[in-house]
Amino acid sequence: MSSRDRKAEEMFRCSERERAVFEAGIKMGTIYHQFVGTPADTSNIPALEKAIERSIMVQPFVVSAEVRIEIRRGERKDAYDYVSLRGEMIDAVVKIRIKDTIVTAEMRYLEELDYPLMYVSDISP
Amino acid sequence: MSSRDRKAEEMFRCSERERAVFEAGIKMGTIYHQFVGTPADTSNIPALEKAIERSIMVQPFVVSAEVRIEIRRGERKDAYDYVSLRGEMIDAVVKIRIKDTIVTAEMRYLEELDYPLMYVSDISP
Amino acid sequence: MSSRDRKAEEMFRCSERERAVFEAGIKMGTIYHQFVGTPADTSNIPALEKAIERSIMVQPFVVSAEVRIEIRRGERKDAYDYVSLRGEMIDAVVKIRIKDTIVTAEMRYLEELDYPLMYVSDISP
Amino acid sequence: MSSRDRKAEEMFRCSERERAVFEAGIKMGTIYHQFVGTPADTSNIPALEKAIERSIMVQPFVVSAEVRIEIRRGERKDAYDYVSLRGEMIDAVVKIRIKDTIVTAEMRYLEELDYPLMYVSDISP
Repeated sequence: MSSRDRKAEEMFRCSERERAVFEAGIKMGTIYHQFVGTPADTSNIPALEKAIERSIMVQPFVVSAEVRIEIRRGERKDAYDYVSLRGEMIDAVVKIRIKDTIVTAEMRYLEELDYPLMYVSDISP
Repeated sequence: MSSRDRKAEEMFRCSERERAVFEAGIKMGTIYHQFVGTPADTSNIPALEKAIERSIMVQPFVVSAEVRIEIRRGERKDAYDYVSLRGEMIDAVVKIRIKDTIVTAEMRYLEELDYPLMYVSDISP
Repeated sequence: MSSRDRKAEEMFRCSERERAVFEAGIKMGTIYHQFVGTPADTSNIPALEKAIERSIMVQPFVVSAEVRIEIRRGERKDAYDYVSLRGEMIDAVVKIRIKDTIVTAEMRYLEELDYPLMYVSDISP
Repeated sequence: MSSRDRKAEEMFRCSERERAVFEAGIKMGTIYHQFVGTPADTSNIPALEKAIERSIMVQPFVVSAEVRIEIRRGERKDAYDYVSLRGEMIDAVVKIRIKDTIVTAEMRYLEELDYPLMYVSDISP
C-alpha cells in the first residue's frame, strides 16, 4: 500500500464495502459522461467498445470492464446517416475490487423505465 | 413511489445505504467527465459553476450540489491565455438522499496525492 | 498582436477568411461534444445555455455566442423523468472575427435532414 | 447526391472550399471536446487513438484521421498514477474532402504557444 493509498483511504468516512460501491458509481458516471456524444455507426463500434473498456480499466480499483454498444441502425445511405452515442445504446458491466470486497455494477437500458439504469448487481462476499 | 422507482429499486442487490453511496459516485463521475475540457477563464467560472450544480441537481436523488472552480490564472494577455477545465480545478460537494439515508460525497484536489480525489465524507444516519 | 498570435498565424496555410471559417467550425464542435450528455430538464436549461455561451466566448476570436436549448418535455413525474442533452435540442449562433472578417456559424436541427446541422450562414465582408 | 446532401448544401452561404475548411474545424473541436478527460496510461493509448480515429471517420466528409497520444509518464506505481487526457497530449491530422477540395487540418501542441493549436495545414487544389 503506497502512502497515497493510505492518504486516500483516510479521507473516506465509510466502510470498505461502501467505498467499493462508491468507486463503482464513479466508473458508471465516467462511461456515460465521457463517451456519450461520440459519433458512431457500425464501423467504429468495436474500437469504441474496446477504448471505453480499456479507459475504465485505467481508473483505480477496476478488475474488469465489459462494454457493448448497440446502435440499431442499418447501412449508411448518406453522410448524415450515423448517430451520436447515447446512454440507451450502452451495456456495461464493471467489477471493482477493494481489498476483499468485489462489487459488480451494470448499466443497462430498461424498457420498463425507458432509462439506461446504472445499478449494483452484486457485492461479494 | 412511481412504478419506475419500484422497478429500478428491484435491480439493486445491495442495501439502501449502499445504493445511496453508489448514486453519489455516479454524480462525481458525471461532474468530472461531462465538464472537464470546457474552455475557462475568470469570465465564465460563475456561469460554469452554476450550470454544473444545476445539472447535477437534475440527476436522481440529489439534494444539493455545490461546485467551486479555481483556475489560478491572472489577466488574459492574448487569445490563447485561457485553460481547459481540469479535475484539479474543481471542488464539489454533493448530497444524495434515498429514503432515510443521506450521503455526502466530495471531490477535492489533494496536494499530497497530486490527484483530485472523490470520496465519501459522510453517511447519515 | 502578441508573439503567440504571430506564431499561430504562421501555422495556417490558408486565407484569413478561411481561417475564420475554420475557427467557427471548432466552436461548433466544442458546443456539441463538450455538452451533449449533460443531464437536463426545464430547471437547468437557462443556466446551461448561459454556461455554454460564456464558455464559447472564452475561446479565441469569438465575438458572440447565443445558445437555445429546447427539450420538449413537460413536468417531471419521477426521478427518471429528465433527458441527456442531445444535439437536436441545441440551437446555436456563433460569430467569429479575425481582423476584418466576420463569420457567422449556426447549429440547428433540420427536420428534413433529421440532423442537427452545423453550417456557415454568413461571411462578411 | 442524396436529397439530404442537397438540403444541407443549400444552408451554406460560402464556397465549397470554405465549407470544407469549416468541416475540418468541426472535427478538430470534436476530437478535443469529446475525448479530453478520458483516463489514460500507457495501457489504453493504442485503443484510444484508434477509437478517436474511427469515430472521426464516421463524421461527414472525412477521408482520413490520424491520432497520436503522448502522455509522458513512466510505469504506474499506484492506483492514482495515471492521467486524464489533455489537449497537449494529442497530435491529430484530419483530411476532409468535399467534391474536389481536400483540406488537411492538424492539432499539435506548440511549445512556443504553450497551447494545442488547431490549424489548416493544406488546402488542395
